[in-house]
Amino acid sequence: MTMKATPSRLSTTSASFDAEFKARLHWSAEADAAIEQVVADILADVRKRGDLAVLEYTNRFDGLSATSVAELELTQDALKAAFDGLPAAQRDALDAAARRVRSYHEAQKKASGESWSYRDADSTLLGQKVTPLDRVGIYVPGGKATYPSSVLMNALPAHVAGVGEIIMVVPTPRGEKNAMVLAAAYIAGVTRVFTIGGAQAVAALAYGTETVPPVNKITGPGNAYVAAAKRRVFGTVGIDMIAGPSEILVLADGSTPPDWVAMDLFSQAEHDELAQSILLCPDAAYIDRVQAEIDRLLPTMPRAEIIAASLNGRGALIHTRSMEEACEISNRIAPEHLEVSSSDPHRWEPLLRHAGAIFLGAFTSESLGDYCAGPNHVLPTSGTARFSSPLGVYDFQKRSSLIEVSEAGAQVLGPIAVTLAEGEGLQAHAEAARLRIKQESLA
Amino acid sequence: MTMKATPSRLSTTSASFDAEFKARLHWSAEADAAIEQVVADILADVRKRGDLAVLEYTNRFDGLSATSVAELELTQDALKAAFDGLPAAQRDALDAAARRVRSYHEAQKKASGESWSYRDADSTLLGQKVTPLDRVGIYVPGGKATYPSSVLMNALPAHVAGVGEIIMVVPTPRGEKNAMVLAAAYIAGVTRVFTIGGAQAVAALAYGTETVPPVNKITGPGNAYVAAAKRRVFGTVGIDMIAGPSEILVLADGSTPPDWVAMDLFSQAEHDELAQSILLCPDAAYIDRVQAEIDRLLPTMPRAEIIAASLNGRGALIHTRSMEEACEISNRIAPEHLEVSSSDPHRWEPLLRHAGAIFLGAFTSESLGDYCAGPNHVLPTSGTARFSSPLGVYDFQKRSSLIEVSEAGAQVLGPIAVTLAEGEGLQAHAEAARLRIKQESLA
Repeated sequence: MTMKATPSRLSTTSASFDAEFKARLHWSAEADAAIEQVVADILADVRKRGDLAVLEYTNRFDGLSATSVAELELTQDALKAAFDGLPAAQRDALDAAARRVRSYHEAQKKASGESWSYRDADSTLLGQKVTPLDRVGIYVPGGKATYPSSVLMNALPAHVAGVGEIIMVVPTPRGEKNAMVLAAAYIAGVTRVFTIGGAQAVAALAYGTETVPPVNKITGPGNAYVAAAKRRVFGTVGIDMIAGPSEILVLADGSTPPDWVAMDLFSQAEHDELAQSILLCPDAAYIDRVQAEIDRLLPTMPRAEIIAASLNGRGALIHTRSMEEACEISNRIAPEHLEVSSSDPHRWEPLLRHAGAIFLGAFTSESLGDYCAGPNHVLPTSGTARFSSPLGVYDFQKRSSLIEVSEAGAQVLGPIAVTLAEGEGLQAHAEAARLRIKQESLA
Repeated sequence: MTMKATPSRLSTTSASFDAEFKARLHWSAEADAAIEQVVADILADVRKRGDLAVLEYTNRFDGLSATSVAELELTQDALKAAFDGLPAAQRDALDAAARRVRSYHEAQKKASGESWSYRDADSTLLGQKVTPLDRVGIYVPGGKATYPSSVLMNALPAHVAGVGEIIMVVPTPRGEKNAMVLAAAYIAGVTRVFTIGGAQAVAALAYGTETVPPVNKITGPGNAYVAAAKRRVFGTVGIDMIAGPSEILVLADGSTPPDWVAMDLFSQAEHDELAQSILLCPDAAYIDRVQAEIDRLLPTMPRAEIIAASLNGRGALIHTRSMEEACEISNRIAPEHLEVSSSDPHRWEPLLRHAGAIFLGAFTSESLGDYCAGPNHVLPTSGTARFSSPLGVYDFQKRSSLIEVSEAGAQVLGPIAVTLAEGEGLQAHAEAARLRIKQESLA
């Protein structure tokens, strides 16, 4: 049996394009009532019984036989040992990636995460104080999809923000630990690590137990149970977005070697069958060449089956009238990853309004961004780039408004507040403002 | 019958303080299953039947007899007429407040909401592009709690962010329109106004109908139905936080006239019975003076009943050992509004880690901040200031990472990405990076 990956071929000039395009894009996470109930029960149980509940669920779901939650904590020495035990190449790569990711997020903090204030003409001070969260939790999946790079991408922005304690949870099914994940926790400055997972880990972080301290925010990806648990504890703690399947959109003008583009489409498709890879290009002959490279390269891929399932099920090669039209369609999709594979990427970038990350030029493969360019790889999926942003330092900070009204300012602001408060029928608001107005100016 | 307002007197030196304090703070919004079901049905119905469903619910719940949703839209002329028809004092007050709020949010955008980028040693470009949302929806409550100031506080940051279209919804029970609310929409640059409300308005904004355009984010307060609807459409669109009851915490060193402080406590309590007003002060005699002012002033208040219910049910006057301890307790509460009513507020401000807004000095009554100082009055409630921020320009913007790896950069980053991708078993990621490495450097 020869495996084939043939993404749908669509053309914007076809009368049926809009319908086909919409059908292709459609994806929705149906809430699963059974999962919801299981998760609600686990949350309630951990809230009530604390450590004991966490211990029971962990032993049951992860096939362990721990006798206390304390036993499930890894020491800093264990993390350091994991790092020291890696092959030098992996150690160096993790280290180099961490340095670049840290440096990018330091620039991000400087550009948009510092306190600011000013005084107006009446010497009234106005501004915002930006402070780090006290303590955050990072969920790291265990089992087959274990990504040390995600540890860096979640922990480093928190560390750069100045978060006091970073608590990581990672399940270890049947006791299997991933050395690179622990090594990543070591170099990213994680404070404590518990080898727990699932809804019980989310509950422990949100409510705290005798052993696990409660956090202010939980970030990081997880399975459907973890996602449901995060959604439910939202409000008690902050959460990052609930991620959908990963997507890449490549805008190509035909100047990039077609095997590069084929491989970039693969690198999204290999994540899972629901991942989506789309190519937009005004040059039909170039699309043919990309398809030929897909055919040639697919058999060489260890994850060929997943890639084929993803490309056949959700992939698309779309022939557009022009690059301008390709940009417009990209805006309708609002992709998580957007490659502008063009010899003149800065010509198109201003036209691109919605995307998690924009990769400019042929040398900027998404995979370089995923691992080590510096920007975060936790990005808004499923079109949520229309209203949300990459994970960043700002997710681990919060703002407090600062207001210091001077005596002179109170004379100017008081009468305005009195009028508006009375208009809203809030007399105590009006009185509180009026008390600050000097009698002589009440005339 | 004499109405009395006697907030609990607590002292941090009491052995039972911790327990009493926790009991006082406890508040939780229980999800109401009946409301959840009604809201789920309304959302599904509007999604399916569009305008027709919105029209039916609006006529039924608001006692109207409109024949189309188009009929429920207000023209810009109607908004302008509402503004022009206001008494001059109200017009001027709205105008002055809008100018100050706009100017503060412009400073906010400049300080933390501009695009940025830099090039590293290999000329690789890294940065973030900050763009406004295309279209947002603002929910404005109708009926008794109708606040024009909230229109300004929601619409102006969106306007300053550069949002393309601002769609406001406001129910008009029995057809009653609030002129100040419409006037506020006029001066805040709202694009379109529909007189619809409830879960049906949230659904219309989230999914769009034949007449109401779909938005990317919905902000603004509402009743339990509106809150449940916002929670459910989250993911399809962005939402702001779900607000709990309003709170004020006053840190007093005893230097502020006690009637000022009493009135500030009232101005929170008058919002509703669940609102919370707390005073923290190291001076017991001063607390007595504040209680005396509460007794004296309460009878003069039009909303005395609500104030008394709030202060008796949830208020507290807490005697602390010191101002330092008061700051520490304030951090445990993470209040929405925090007044530092001290002759030396800048001494205490650095100790205050969690608060929605910090009001410094005796002249800075919360009410001045609520209406016209400039900062936003939409603030995190119920302790969520531990991890969230005032509504701001940033809520109406989103960020896209920008990455342009140079050819030289690809040679440096490629090997790092290859090592990490192979460590994660993602071969296509590794290949995509390897293809960008020049053959001679593969050695």
